[in-house]
Parts: sequence; structure tokens; C-alpha cells
Amino acid sequence: MNTIAKPPVANALDVAREHARQRYRRDDAPEPAAWNETLQVLLGHRSVRAFLPDSLASGTIETLVAAAQSAPSSSNLQIWSVVAVEDPARKARLAALAGHQQHILEAPLFLVWLVDFDRLTRLSDVDGVASEALDFTETFLLGAVDTALAAQNATVALESLGLGAVYIGGIRNRPKEVAAELNLPPGVFALFGHAIGHPDPERPAAVKPRLPQSAVLFREQYAWTDAQQSAAYSYDSRIRAFQREQGMVEKDWTIQARERTRGPSSMAGRHVLREVLNDLGFELR
Amino acid sequence: MNTIAKPPVANALDVAREHARQRYRRDDAPEPAAWNETLQVLLGHRSVRAFLPDSLASGTIETLVAAAQSAPSSSNLQIWSVVAVEDPARKARLAALAGHQQHILEAPLFLVWLVDFDRLTRLSDVDGVASEALDFTETFLLGAVDTALAAQNATVALESLGLGAVYIGGIRNRPKEVAAELNLPPGVFALFGHAIGHPDPERPAAVKPRLPQSAVLFREQYAWTDAQQSAAYSYDSRIRAFQREQGMVEKDWTIQARERTRGPSSMAGRHVLREVLNDLGFELR
Repeated sequence: MNTIAKPPVANALDVAREHARQRYRRDDAPEPAAWNETLQVLLGHRSVRAFLPDSLASGTIETLVAAAQSAPSSSNLQIWSVVAVEDPARKARLAALAGHQQHILEAPLFLVWLVDFDRLTRLSDVDGVASEALDFTETFLLGAVDTALAAQNATVALESLGLGAVYIGGIRNRPKEVAAELNLPPGVFALFGHAIGHPDPERPAAVKPRLPQSAVLFREQYAWTDAQQSAAYSYDSRIRAFQREQGMVEKDWTIQARERTRGPSSMAGRHVLREVLNDLGFELR
Repeated sequence: MNTIAKPPVANALDVAREHARQRYRRDDAPEPAAWNETLQVLLGHRSVRAFLPDSLASGTIETLVAAAQSAPSSSNLQIWSVVAVEDPARKARLAALAGHQQHILEAPLFLVWLVDFDRLTRLSDVDGVASEALDFTETFLLGAVDTALAAQNATVALESLGLGAVYIGGIRNRPKEVAAELNLPPGVFALFGHAIGHPDPERPAAVKPRLPQSAVLFREQYAWTDAQQSAAYSYDSRIRAFQREQGMVEKDWTIQARERTRGPSSMAGRHVLREVLNDLGFELR
């Protein structure tokens, strides 16, 4: 059993301030009210897309799944499953289906998180009573939320162990082909992938700055004012500074977001998702 | 600045085993491959529904939102917002809309997590180019996933600080009334609530056991066999033991799950969610 070394706490305030500064790149970044190892893991998150070839320690997958199962579950329905893919050939096929993402090949572990209505149906249909609620948009949404809560616990767990990861929304580009590759029955949907491994220290990931809190956090009621608008626009210069440092092409966040949400042409095939979900057994009434 | 006391690590293996045992209530529960404070927070989760009246330390909300904003965000769209409700009268009205849940009244803080298409629309529509992708089921699903990832980071953060919380899916029982109460514009949806406070030690919450890993975790491909089926059924006796200890009515999990998913009558009004989302500005094409 390994125990991760704990950082010295004498400089906790400095560490907290530095984490907040990196996350917001603002002099008025909120100062954490307290600090501990877990907050350090959370605020220190960066998505990792460059991995060493090293395999994961024995028992790692089970530890991540235990963390995932420890997340809250609506009405304790536990309406998700996960497939752990380690076979290089299968990872390569999934990488191709997800838009040819090289980091899926590099990562020793690729998890695919599933909204799973099949288990519940198998277990509860013994008396012939149909679970009609599974046909409704609400229950699919509940499943997607609970799957995401679980996966995020796995992310926090793996980062606490010094591993890195990136979610792969591209797994929704070709849902039917993914379902065939993973042998998914009707009523099981691959919500997103999760490439996991040891971060390559030669190609380190950076903390990406986020919108200022004043553009995201409201008190008592939602109220978008000129103050929110200018706070949000001020983020463009922060994201450009980040891109400059990373040797990326500079582009305002507002422009990036518009381009990403332009329409079907910017959606990598996912504009047909509703019809595909119907075909996969989700009525979405 | 407070720094949470660290547990002694000498007995890390014992602590890890005890956490796994409580989560699964099985002799063959997976033994964590490693152990640290963060894993202890994750595996030690329990939903808290009984709070002390004490208010939260200054800066707590900002710390939770910083953790939430540190979660991964698909294409960095940051497509969520959060409203922090502390006014007792507003909490009471929201509690009534969410099925009269007493713990919302008890909690000093009630967060409402929002899928937010409005901010993106305001910021990116400056040149008159419509963000047509927002009309598709895919983008709403992406928003729900990212909102859940963010909220779960807040949950982990607050539990690391010794606070407790419970998600409130009941906020989806009456979405239009909730939107009016929170002054939500079109394109903003209250995905779930989050009651947060200091756990009342006189009314402690317990760790709820989950399905065995063999019923949730698949290798390489999904494959539901007799082994999975019997593993899942064996969970009924664990959940009954939990209920007995907690003084709750005993009921098999398979029966609970069937009752909860029976149909519209078991959905607290949420069977109309698709039409309501249309009315709130989400086309879900």
C-alpha cells in the first residue's frame, strides 16, 4: 500500500493563493476559506493528454470504481456502468471512432462511462411489470447526471494518486459503432470516455483559467447585468495569455465558444444524437 | 485560514479496508491500491439530510465554486452557472416546490446548479451569428454532464471541509415555478439543487452500501452473465441489513428500483420534462 506524501502545511496560505491565482489569473481571485490536500487536488486539476507508456498499479481500476460508486446516486438507482478498456487494438478502434484522438492510444487505460438502463430492467422485470419511467427524458437525464457524478469522483481519485486523465466527449460522435465495439445491449449508452495514465513530465499540462466567479455565481436570483457582461469579456484576455504561454493559436474565448456552438457543422456528427438514442432504445418521451 | 487535521497514516491500510467494507459490506470488497486523505473523503461519502443551524464560514461558497470551476469543461464552454440561496423565505419556497423536503430548510446554504445557455448566447451573438448547436439534444446533454461534474467537485470540496450535503433532484418537479423563483431567463435550467451545511452529530448519516463491483465494472466489453445477475441480487441482503441498522423499513433494492421506475405515477411530475424544457427554450432537436 502506497501513501501519497503530504505537502507541508506551513505554507498552506501561499499554496491556496497560488492555486486560485492560476485558476482565475486575476488579482481579485477568491482566497480559499480553508485549505487541505483534497482542495489542492481539486483546484490543481488540469486535463492530461500526454501519457507515459507505464501501466497502472494493480488495483487502480478497482479503487477508481470504488470512488465512483461512492458518489451520490439519485434514489440509489445506480443507473450507470463502466467498461475498462486496456487492449491496444480496441483502444485504437475507439480512438478512431472518437475523432482519432492520439491520447486514447497513449493512455494505458480507457474507461467508457455508460448510462445503463439494462441492469435495472433485467433485475426488476421479474414480475413482468414494465419500468415505464425509463422511457422518459427525465430518467435519461437523471442517468447522465449520475454517471457524470460518478466519473468525476474517479477523476478526483486518480489525480490524488498522481495520475492524469481527460474526458472524451468524442465517444458520442459515433454511438452505434461504439455500442457494437463494446457489445452494449439496448438501453445502454456510452456517455463519454476517459483516457487515464501517468502524465508525461516532458509534455506537462497546464491549469486552464476559467471565467471569473462573478460571471458564474449568482446570489438569491439569476441576474445578468453589465457587470457580469464585462467580467465575462475580461476573460478573453486571460485565455489569450494562457494560449500564448502554451504556444497555442490565440483566440478569444467568446469567439471559440461561438465557433464550437455554430451548428451541425461544428458538432462532429452529434447533431443526430436524439435519433440515435431512439434507435439505441431510449424513447426520450 | 483553517487547515483540516490529517489522519494518522500508520493505520492507512486498516482505514482503507474499513472504508471499502462499509461501501460494499462484502468480505471480497476490493482493497484500495493506495490510500490518502482525498480517497478517504471520497469513499467516506454519505448524503447528509440533518443539519445544524450554524452558518457557513465566510468564503465557503467561493471555495466551493472555485472547486466546481476547476472541473473539466467540454471544449471549455463552461456552460453552467449556480445560484446560492441563503434567504430562509426563498429556501422555504424552493423546498415546497421540490416536494417539501425539510432538509432544504435546515441547510444554511441551498445551491441550485444551472445548465446555462444564456451566458454563451449573450457573449457570442455580437455579430448576429446564431449558436444553432444550442438547439440540439447533444448540447443539452453536454451541459447537464458538465454541470454535474462541477457540482460533484463542490461536493468533494465541502466534505473535505467537514460539511455535508445532499443533492435535490426534486428541483425538477416544478421547473417553471423554480425558474420564476430564481428569475432564470430562457435557456437556463435548474438541473438539481444542493442542500449544504454542518452535519448534525445527533442525527448522523451512514455510508450507504452499493452494488458489488462485478455488477458495475466490465472488462473490454459489456457482458451481463449469470455471475453478474447473482452478484446484483446478493446486494438485496446488504441493503436490507443497512435499512435494519438505520431503523428504516426493509425492502429489497430490486423492488425499490422497480417501484421508483414504474412510470409517470412514480416520477413526481417529471414525466412532462421534455415539453417543459421545450417551453423553457431548449428545443432538444
